[in-house]
Amino acid sequence: MDDIAALTAVEAIKQLKARYFRTLDTKDWDGMREVFTEDVVVDTTGSGGAVVTGRGAFMEFVSTHLADILTVHHGHTPEITLTSPTTATGVWAMEDRVRYPDGRELIAAGHYHETYDKSDGTWRIKTSKLTRLFMDLSEPAAG
Amino acid sequence: MDDIAALTAVEAIKQLKARYFRTLDTKDWDGMREVFTEDVVVDTTGSGGAVVTGRGAFMEFVSTHLADILTVHHGHTPEITLTSPTTATGVWAMEDRVRYPDGRELIAAGHYHETYDKSDGTWRIKTSKLTRLFMDLSEPAAG
Amino acid sequence: MDDIAALTAVEAIKQLKARYFRTLDTKDWDGMREVFTEDVVVDTTGSGGAVVTGRGAFMEFVSTHLADILTVHHGHTPEITLTSPTTATGVWAMEDRVRYPDGRELIAAGHYHETYDKSDGTWRIKTSKLTRLFMDLSEPAAG
Repeated sequence: MDDIAALTAVEAIKQLKARYFRTLDTKDWDGMREVFTEDVVVDTTGSGGAVVTGRGAFMEFVSTHLADILTVHHGHTPEITLTSPTTATGVWAMEDRVRYPDGRELIAAGHYHETYDKSDGTWRIKTSKLTRLFMDLSEPAAG
Repeated sequence: MDDIAALTAVEAIKQLKARYFRTLDTKDWDGMREVFTEDVVVDTTGSGGAVVTGRGAFMEFVSTHLADILTVHHGHTPEITLTSPTTATGVWAMEDRVRYPDGRELIAAGHYHETYDKSDGTWRIKTSKLTRLFMDLSEPAAG
Repeated sequence: MDDIAALTAVEAIKQLKARYFRTLDTKDWDGMREVFTEDVVVDTTGSGGAVVTGRGAFMEFVSTHLADILTVHHGHTPEITLTSPTTATGVWAMEDRVRYPDGRELIAAGHYHETYDKSDGTWRIKTSKLTRLFMDLSEPAAG
């Protein structure tokens, strides 16, 4: 794999994760489904969540759980490493804000530890595990 | 347009938007002027603002309106798409903090939806529309 | 230096700074040491700190000072400029959150102004100066 192909793959994976964030926070569930492999494994045990296996199960969970919840997720300073022309790993710093209908608000930060897979010419998220630096659950700052 | 030219253009547009953020928050109005095309259209109706047409009018608005206001704008996870060797579109996640002399503070997040144009070898912002996920206007957290 | 080499260097420097942030916030001091040149100069006078010269002295300071302190540092929109095949400059927007054992919390933002040096095939941070847009020191928002 030459340098150009590697740089092109890294940029494609950055834009893949960008679509993950945008479709998640705008509740574009049809768009979000496309960023995952069918056998994706999402591990949010670091936030008190579960390990969810499979795109269908994860999208069912997300679209149900977040229907009435405002979310803002921002990703920072990706470390993408190609492990073959069709596989890669990545670490992303992240910050999120989750606002519940009852007025509680979560502000938190951590890192995504992920793997990516390319098939049919398209990169997708294959595994994602979120570790946390801190999680604050509080009443909203704004009245 | 080959892959190298495309990657070079994407990086140039990322650095263009980086200059937008830095010159805005450091109030470097001469530097900020350079990031826009002369006919730029900036749409902040999503934040309760106006549609401003033209670099001169926008810089007049910004430099007057923000003279005594602290701003911090951060951009995240760009999705830059080249539509020709001299035109591109982009979506950026963003977060901003605006602190007014009277002590009020705005904390907000959203997405910039933009187009870019290259002329005389330089990429510039041609249109920019900001949509919002949330806007909180409150007394500052710090006393 | 051709375009591919330049793009590869810019991506390597972005990942270098990503390792700086990740190793700092996860207190991976052995990993953090590797991101600096031996003669690194770190200037935090803009935050009320000192100018520290030398990797050994800086790592001693960081590992001692931050042992019991939660930190979250996020970097945004890098402007990396190659000045030769083995030297570069960079500006990064940043935001940080520092939580002290006594309950105080710093929330701040600013810009890193840096230089980088490549030797033995590896990019490292040679100088880093942090300027500030604001610094808020307060009791934590969450009880």
